[in-house]
This record gives sequence, structure tokens and C-alpha cells, in this order.
Amino acid sequence: MSKRLTISLDAMGGDNSPNVVIAGVNTSLKQLPDVNYLLFGDEQKIAPILERFPLVKGVSQIRHTDEVVTNETAPAIALRAGRKSSMRLAINAVADGEADGIISAGNTGALMAMAKFVLKTLPGIDRPAIAACLPTQQGEKVMLDLGANVLCNANHLVQFAVMGEVFARNILDHEQPSIGLLNIGVEGVKGNENVKKAASILQESTLPIHFYGFVEGDDIGAGTVDVIVTDGFTGNVALKTIEGTAKMYTFFLKQALLDSWAARLGALMAKPALNQLRTHLDPRRYNGAMLLGLNGICVKSHGGTDAFGFANAIRVAVQLITEGVNEDIKKDYAKLGEVMAQEQQRVVANG
Amino acid sequence: MSKRLTISLDAMGGDNSPNVVIAGVNTSLKQLPDVNYLLFGDEQKIAPILERFPLVKGVSQIRHTDEVVTNETAPAIALRAGRKSSMRLAINAVADGEADGIISAGNTGALMAMAKFVLKTLPGIDRPAIAACLPTQQGEKVMLDLGANVLCNANHLVQFAVMGEVFARNILDHEQPSIGLLNIGVEGVKGNENVKKAASILQESTLPIHFYGFVEGDDIGAGTVDVIVTDGFTGNVALKTIEGTAKMYTFFLKQALLDSWAARLGALMAKPALNQLRTHLDPRRYNGAMLLGLNGICVKSHGGTDAFGFANAIRVAVQLITEGVNEDIKKDYAKLGEVMAQEQQRVVANG
Repeated sequence: MSKRLTISLDAMGGDNSPNVVIAGVNTSLKQLPDVNYLLFGDEQKIAPILERFPLVKGVSQIRHTDEVVTNETAPAIALRAGRKSSMRLAINAVADGEADGIISAGNTGALMAMAKFVLKTLPGIDRPAIAACLPTQQGEKVMLDLGANVLCNANHLVQFAVMGEVFARNILDHEQPSIGLLNIGVEGVKGNENVKKAASILQESTLPIHFYGFVEGDDIGAGTVDVIVTDGFTGNVALKTIEGTAKMYTFFLKQALLDSWAARLGALMAKPALNQLRTHLDPRRYNGAMLLGLNGICVKSHGGTDAFGFANAIRVAVQLITEGVNEDIKKDYAKLGEVMAQEQQRVVANG
Repeated sequence: MSKRLTISLDAMGGDNSPNVVIAGVNTSLKQLPDVNYLLFGDEQKIAPILERFPLVKGVSQIRHTDEVVTNETAPAIALRAGRKSSMRLAINAVADGEADGIISAGNTGALMAMAKFVLKTLPGIDRPAIAACLPTQQGEKVMLDLGANVLCNANHLVQFAVMGEVFARNILDHEQPSIGLLNIGVEGVKGNENVKKAASILQESTLPIHFYGFVEGDDIGAGTVDVIVTDGFTGNVALKTIEGTAKMYTFFLKQALLDSWAARLGALMAKPALNQLRTHLDPRRYNGAMLLGLNGICVKSHGGTDAFGFANAIRVAVQLITEGVNEDIKKDYAKLGEVMAQEQQRVVANG
């Protein structure tokens, strides 16, 4: 890294804030020493914790504010009444050019509403979407939207497809990423009106992207496509269902391996392999989802993560910043966006 | 079992029909010898296969029809044009009292539309829902709807909650089953209007059921509640995401255990335990979902299952029939239905 980066942190967001946020910075210091942090939040709570992490204190500035957006706050309320909240001020720092990116583990809906209001969306994008990388049988793939938009119409889904494609090409290095629309069957008659309409736009389109067609829930883990596109409700349920199923599997695996002496001994011999498996599927490794489609890097951490998970969200933000990903997305999207605008006019003109 | 049962089979439904259907009957014969089968479908295709399974032939009657509902047929078309299809005739056999229940591995939407039209819904139920049992960290739980209803309003979700409660009490022997509404957060502000409204109906209700509140995708595997209620789109995606994640986990586990000689040896020693795990989580063991809310037993098998999976669907149907579950559901639902009707009038009256 040639120059020091600055990341603004919503120090009060998440279940165990500000502890996890500061401990997360501490964890990431070894791998990412060249980052400064602006910690937005309650100085009375932050300062004593910084005393316990002198290295973090050395690269951080506290920006005091009393106000916090809670998980119970509706996005519209947060937008109106939360102008001095830690989340909002941390986002402002990116808009003001003070910070290169912002991370929050707080209220997703509020983060999305505020980031959209302050940073604005890229040209042609109506709504940002939450995108994250997932482990699959075919390597890492990207899924979006994971919860920013509860209701999505067909145009939103098409925009997510285009954004996801750029993301997969730039971040995951897939040369010609395939895009699948999540549905409850692969036949054209299945699904709700929005996915059907989005599929027909993508199918009939002359966009230079590879639209695979509909995929189902089991295609996520199979890694059938490089980009899975869905609305924020379904995407969030699917993401958390993956987490829950992986935990359940681990639980049953442990039970089975404790079942007999032979199994215990076998498990002991296979321990390094099993640890490797656990590491590979550790949801904390995949923590740090990007709000795609904004003029600025904005990363959402899981609210319930720990220091290791938060450090991963920092790694994601640094990667997005240093690789100039948003610039690439803007550039690629501008090209795709033109074609897409023509497409949509064509679709409207044809009824 | 005191008397012989008769089950009607849509012999042409599913990916490898009629082979899998007949092989499935053969597999189930040992455990369930006292069942007769009506095989609806193409005699030219069915008869030669029966020659290979003489025991199945001994308990089966072929009811010939040329017509088949394909997976590409829209439900409304199937209903209008499929009156002589194997699926429809198999359902008719239940309505006519010839069969005690019907199983199909065919087009879910068509099965649901036809079963609703022919068998009618129970009093107070607008739409049947697909319910199935799932493995969780806390034992088997039930989830519905798994794909019968792509769009559900709040009232439908409330009806599913009541049906699921009865199912969990009768089939899974949970004394006071807890019910959770699948959402993208546990706070009241999260989610779409339908789940919010359904939650408020269930919360304010005097129904004698235990409404837990909102649950998220990871609560499915955790087994947080006994009954998970959701719309058919989300439920189907969640169900298949569980399958895909379990397959992915198994794939990575195998890879890890082949990684070194120590791991291979360990895996060999732990093999009985690992086989037990695989058996426990085998999706075929959970094959056979019930269309809840109908005047008649109607079971949907996974279209892509094998003989073992289809045999499980038969086991589910036989269990539902012999335990008189539908009668219990009707009785319990009648009680609950009265309270619910009052509730809904109250809600409407209060605006």
C-alpha cells in the first residue's frame, strides 16, 4: 500500500459495540498497518477501551457524538432524526473526502437509507444493493441483494444483475461471469411477476453479459452461477439459512464424532483437516458486505460478529478501496448502463 | 395396520417416472406390505416396468391415461386442459373414495391447483400450503409454505400458522408448539407489510397458540421454533438452500478428509459415525411434503428423488392416513378456526 488510507467507523453499530469495533481494528492491525481510523461515537465509552488497545489508539481519532441509530429505528426515522448519529457522521466523512470508506455493523436499513441519501447512487442505479461473497462447491461467488431492499421490481433486479456482474469480474476475477435469477423453479412459468419480467428483460437484452437464467436455492451452494440475483427479503433469508445450516451440520458432525471411541480417535487424527474445513466455512471469513451502487465505499458488517469478523469487514473495505473497485464499477457500469437504458426504453416502447 | 389402504399414484410425475415411482413402491413393500396402489399413467410405459417388479404388480392396478401434466404447464392450464391427466385422475380417486391418499412427484403448482379444485380446502382455509419436516439442532420441526403459494397475504400466513401448529402437535408430538414467522430481522420494523401484519394479528390474538415472533433464516437450522411460517417463494428458496448447503458441506468434508494420510485414516475409523451423519441429514429421508389444509391426504414428492426418496413419501402418506391426521387437523382447526374468524373480524372492525 503506497499511501495511508482512512476508514471511518460507526463505532456504536452492532451488538457489542464499541468493543468489537475497536477489538476488530486491533485484530486487523498486523495485516493492515497503514490505515487510520475515525471512530464516530460516544467518547465516554470509546476512550476507556482505546486505553486497553494502545496500538489502535495510535491510529485512531475519536469523533464524539451522543446519538446512535438503534436496530429498532425505522430507516425513514433514522434519516430524519439521526443526522448527528455515529452512523450518519461516519458516512458524511466519506462524502466530505475525509475518509476513503465507511464500515458499520449497525441497522442495515438505516445504513442503506443514509448512505443512499449522502453518497448518492451511481448513474442508472435506483437503489444500492448489499452484495457479499459466499463459499460454494465451485469457489467464491457473489449474491445480491442481501437485505437492503425488501421489495424489488423487475428493473431493480436487472440493475442488481449488472452490478453483480461487474463485481464478480472485478473482485472475484471471473472473466465472463454467469448470472442467475433466484427462483422457485427453472421453468419460465414458475415464480412471481418480478422475477419473470426481469428474466425476460435479461434474456431479450443485447447486454454484453452472460445471463444463465433461473436458478434455485440449491444452486447457491452448488456454485452453478457466478452471480446470484434476488430481492433483499429472499436474499437475506437465503444467506442466513446457509449460516444456520452450516452450524447445524457442524453440530451433527461433532455429535457423530463423539459417538464412539473409534470415531473420537478418528476425529483426533483428522483434526487438522476438520479444522481446515471449519476455517474454510467460518461465516466470519465472509463478513463484510458491500453496498453496491453508491458513490463511495460502504461496507456492512454483521451486527453479531466478533473482532475476527469485524477485522474481515475492514479487509474487505481496504480491498475495495485500494483496488479502485468503485471506479472500475463506475466505468464498466457506465458502458453497460447505456445499453441497459436503451434496453429499458425498448421494453417500454414495446409495451 | 388393521385394514389395507389404497394409495393413488401419479405414475407419470417427476423426473424419472414411471420408473422411480414403481421402484419406490417396491422399496416400501417390506415396511408397508398392506397397501394397494392405483397407478395412473401410460400403460405402455408402466406395464413393462411392473414385469420387473412382480411384487409391486401384485398390489397394483394400472389406470391408463395418455395425458400428462409437464413441469412446464402453468397451473391454470393444467386445471383447464388436464382433466384426463395422470395427476388429475389420481386426485379424483381420493375424492371418489377409491383411494385414501394421493402422491405425485409432478408439477407442484398444478398439483396444488388441482387438489384444491377437486378436494376443496378445509373450512376457514383459503389456500393449502406445502408443509414438510426438517432436521434441526433441536430435532424435527415443520416449515410451511414450501412453494404452493408464491404470493401470500397476511391472512394466508396466519392460516398457515394455525395449520402448522396443528401439524406439529399431531405429527411431531410437540405439546405446545411454538410458531415463528420467517423475516429478515427480529425487530418489528423489519420485513415486508405482509409479515408485519401477520405478526400483529398473531400477537394481538387470543388464539390458544404460542406465537414466538419473528425468526430469521439461521433459526431454521437452530430449531428455535417448532413451526416456521413463510410464503411459498421464500419457503421454497430456504428449503432448497438448506439442501444445497448440506451438499456443499458434505463436499468440503470429503475433500478435507482426503487431504492427508492421517485424515484418510481418521475418516476410516470414524466411518460408521460419518455414515450415520449422512443418513441423518439425507434429504431423501425428508422427502414427502403434505399439502396441508385439504379435505384429503395429498403428498408431494420431490421431482428429482429416487426410489428410496419416493418410498419415504409413501411412508409419510401412510402415516398421515393411518393416524387419522386430517381428521385431527379438521377438528382442531375447527376450534381454532372459530377463534381465528372472530379475530379477523375484530381486526377488520378495528381497521
